[in-house]
Amino acid sequence: MMRRGEIIAIGSELLLGGRLDTNSIFLSEGLASNGVEVRFKTIVGDTEADIVAALRTAVRRADVVLLTGGLGPTSDDRTRKAVARATGRPLRRRAEAIEGMRRRLAAWGRTPSAAQQRQGLIPTGAEVLANPVGSAPGFVLRWQGALIAALPGVPVEAERMFTKAVLPRLREGGVAGHIERKVLHTTGLPESDVEQRIGDLLPSDGGIRLGLLASPLGVIVSLTLPVPDGAAGGIRGGRGRSARVRLEKTFRAVRRKLGRHVYAEGTDTMEQVVGRYLAKRGLILALAESCTGGLIGHRLTQVPGSSAYLDRGVVCYSNRAKTELLGVPAGLIARHGAVSAPVAAAMAKGIRVTSKASVGLSVTGIAGPGGGTATKPVGLVYVGLDTMSQGTGKVSKTQAFRFHGTRETIKLRASQAALNLLREWLLGPAPLIDHDSSFPRR
Amino acid sequence: MMRRGEIIAIGSELLLGGRLDTNSIFLSEGLASNGVEVRFKTIVGDTEADIVAALRTAVRRADVVLLTGGLGPTSDDRTRKAVARATGRPLRRRAEAIEGMRRRLAAWGRTPSAAQQRQGLIPTGAEVLANPVGSAPGFVLRWQGALIAALPGVPVEAERMFTKAVLPRLREGGVAGHIERKVLHTTGLPESDVEQRIGDLLPSDGGIRLGLLASPLGVIVSLTLPVPDGAAGGIRGGRGRSARVRLEKTFRAVRRKLGRHVYAEGTDTMEQVVGRYLAKRGLILALAESCTGGLIGHRLTQVPGSSAYLDRGVVCYSNRAKTELLGVPAGLIARHGAVSAPVAAAMAKGIRVTSKASVGLSVTGIAGPGGGTATKPVGLVYVGLDTMSQGTGKVSKTQAFRFHGTRETIKLRASQAALNLLREWLLGPAPLIDHDSSFPRR
Repeated sequence: MMRRGEIIAIGSELLLGGRLDTNSIFLSEGLASNGVEVRFKTIVGDTEADIVAALRTAVRRADVVLLTGGLGPTSDDRTRKAVARATGRPLRRRAEAIEGMRRRLAAWGRTPSAAQQRQGLIPTGAEVLANPVGSAPGFVLRWQGALIAALPGVPVEAERMFTKAVLPRLREGGVAGHIERKVLHTTGLPESDVEQRIGDLLPSDGGIRLGLLASPLGVIVSLTLPVPDGAAGGIRGGRGRSARVRLEKTFRAVRRKLGRHVYAEGTDTMEQVVGRYLAKRGLILALAESCTGGLIGHRLTQVPGSSAYLDRGVVCYSNRAKTELLGVPAGLIARHGAVSAPVAAAMAKGIRVTSKASVGLSVTGIAGPGGGTATKPVGLVYVGLDTMSQGTGKVSKTQAFRFHGTRETIKLRASQAALNLLREWLLGPAPLIDHDSSFPRR
Repeated sequence: MMRRGEIIAIGSELLLGGRLDTNSIFLSEGLASNGVEVRFKTIVGDTEADIVAALRTAVRRADVVLLTGGLGPTSDDRTRKAVARATGRPLRRRAEAIEGMRRRLAAWGRTPSAAQQRQGLIPTGAEVLANPVGSAPGFVLRWQGALIAALPGVPVEAERMFTKAVLPRLREGGVAGHIERKVLHTTGLPESDVEQRIGDLLPSDGGIRLGLLASPLGVIVSLTLPVPDGAAGGIRGGRGRSARVRLEKTFRAVRRKLGRHVYAEGTDTMEQVVGRYLAKRGLILALAESCTGGLIGHRLTQVPGSSAYLDRGVVCYSNRAKTELLGVPAGLIARHGAVSAPVAAAMAKGIRVTSKASVGLSVTGIAGPGGGTATKPVGLVYVGLDTMSQGTGKVSKTQAFRFHGTRETIKLRASQAALNLLREWLLGPAPLIDHDSSFPRR
């Protein structure tokens, strides 16, 4: 039997104020791979009574409850009090909770303020969890058969404390099973086409669950299978192994069926995949962005070590910049417009030649909401690729797209389309879609 | 009495799979300004029994329950069935639910597939809500005294349906009150310093609640006050007005105390604020980014109309690019290193001069996790500003920072520091921090 987990994220800013709970992604994954299936997440504000209510509901239906947030030094941090009230275990000042903070501050020649000392109040009977990267200590206790852990709201602090202090406690007494999960990232196919292609590949016994999620970057396909009786880490155990083999087989069939639309697996991103291909081939990339405004460069440079293959990028938000930085002839822009296949091609070639990089990648388009016309509507985007001769010959390609959505979404889709054009070329030698100055493709 | 609201976001990808529920931000704001205070958000997977459990819990404690997601055509869309089961109202095929879809598809010369027709199954007694921007219809029903609305998971569809169909129903019978909320965005002060500065400005009656939220972009300060008895829109009503006046007064005092650290109010962003200043003064900006990799350009171009003041940017991820594109002397880089105040200054000047823009803004730094040394650690960032003579005289400034966190966080903080340097200059004529090649400032 898989244990059941529940996450309670605390903070009024998560309820009202545009703040998203990013902790729970990491925590859910960590719980799942250790035999705890997260079935519910609850978000509550900094209101003691609501935290108490959420904790009581959670303890009724879960074996493991993780609380995040509300442990800081300020007056709106109420998790300590709420846990004390819900469990009937009054707060006590704990020397070991203050000690770590005192040591950290001493290194800067400071001592804990009265507010910071409040962070040393911990429910009676709870074990204090040191915070290796911040000042707020956490704590863990058992109540009504459930393991309850209170972690800080700051993601890096929650992650470290979870890994260091909560995971070992979850593994005490062995792990009764875990969730196997395989994920594929696709681009260029709508959600219903993806399901139509792969729907009949799933075994009819219903064990494997298919998840589809549409996003501006493409459709994410997940296959999930709870594996009972596996050892921790899931390596041993006959039933566990056969379930894993079954999942792996289905996964391979799904991947085959989706073919070149699959650009990544697991937690990989497009920018990591493209970066690895570039690094492996020793190629140097240069970017010429217009409507994406720097987003492609930003995405590629999220990957550590990207300076090995990204030389430079230019963001040409004016026609003059396209001419001065990339040598795009002013006459070409006048004749076809800045948003056109010839200009996308000239931008890609211009950045490659001026930078002496191996590959030039370009985008030009209309991100909106203004600036569209009947013949060149908002969402019209051209991406271009220009390469030096690399064995397979010199390549100069453009693709046209017509995207829908907000300015932000169109920028994301355009950046993905450009990176995907590059990926398809890097995959070689299968033919790319030919030079195409007409839209739409999706 | 404020009504109580609850949001249930449905989708296994929201539980396990790194997908964040972005809908609830908009929905919470919309509910709050119409007299419904969201106290809990629950996230459940695509499991019928769990959706049923979440709905039953929500109806016990809320007057308005919004469900998002699980209305699509694929087999993992289970919201319709779950609502039918929880409320005991069986699904029936509804002509009006299919009709909109049929019309939309007809425009493309297609007819609804069997899977899409499943979207026409609606609980008996529920009212169908048309989807103006997608295929999945929603529905609304009353059960056990609560208004329950099921909306699509796609953000733009949820937003349109909520605004068009749910809000008018919330306003039926008048609005009993609403939540007034004022928000400030600060940068350059740690969370505890912010609270220390403003803590004693809050009236002791406890009516106004202070919220503080630390993020890589700075600390967000919110003041929240539930206003009873206000008319819809909150214009009339004596008690409502005096509460609003009190909130406004406290807000002004807080803003004064935080001074130039405040860069925006409400939903404004740094890039919007900076963009407005640039547009107002008729200034043209050019960017020279290194460690931020295009993030500053990306942020500025999220704002519609940014092409009016952003001419271009260059991302110089190699030393050669800094020399070729910006004219930074190779000797300067050799002498001081690419991450140094003189190089930041030369980058800002280089992009301004080559682009003939009014203002050049630059960043160079070490985003990590690799690449740090004892004298130039990960997180060391220099930002630079170079301007044409603009009445107040020619300005050439750099600032040094030492940031902590992940690569992603350091990039965010660096982009914010650069934009803030620009903002402070645009605010003029108060003096900037002097040219400073030593760190740290935070």
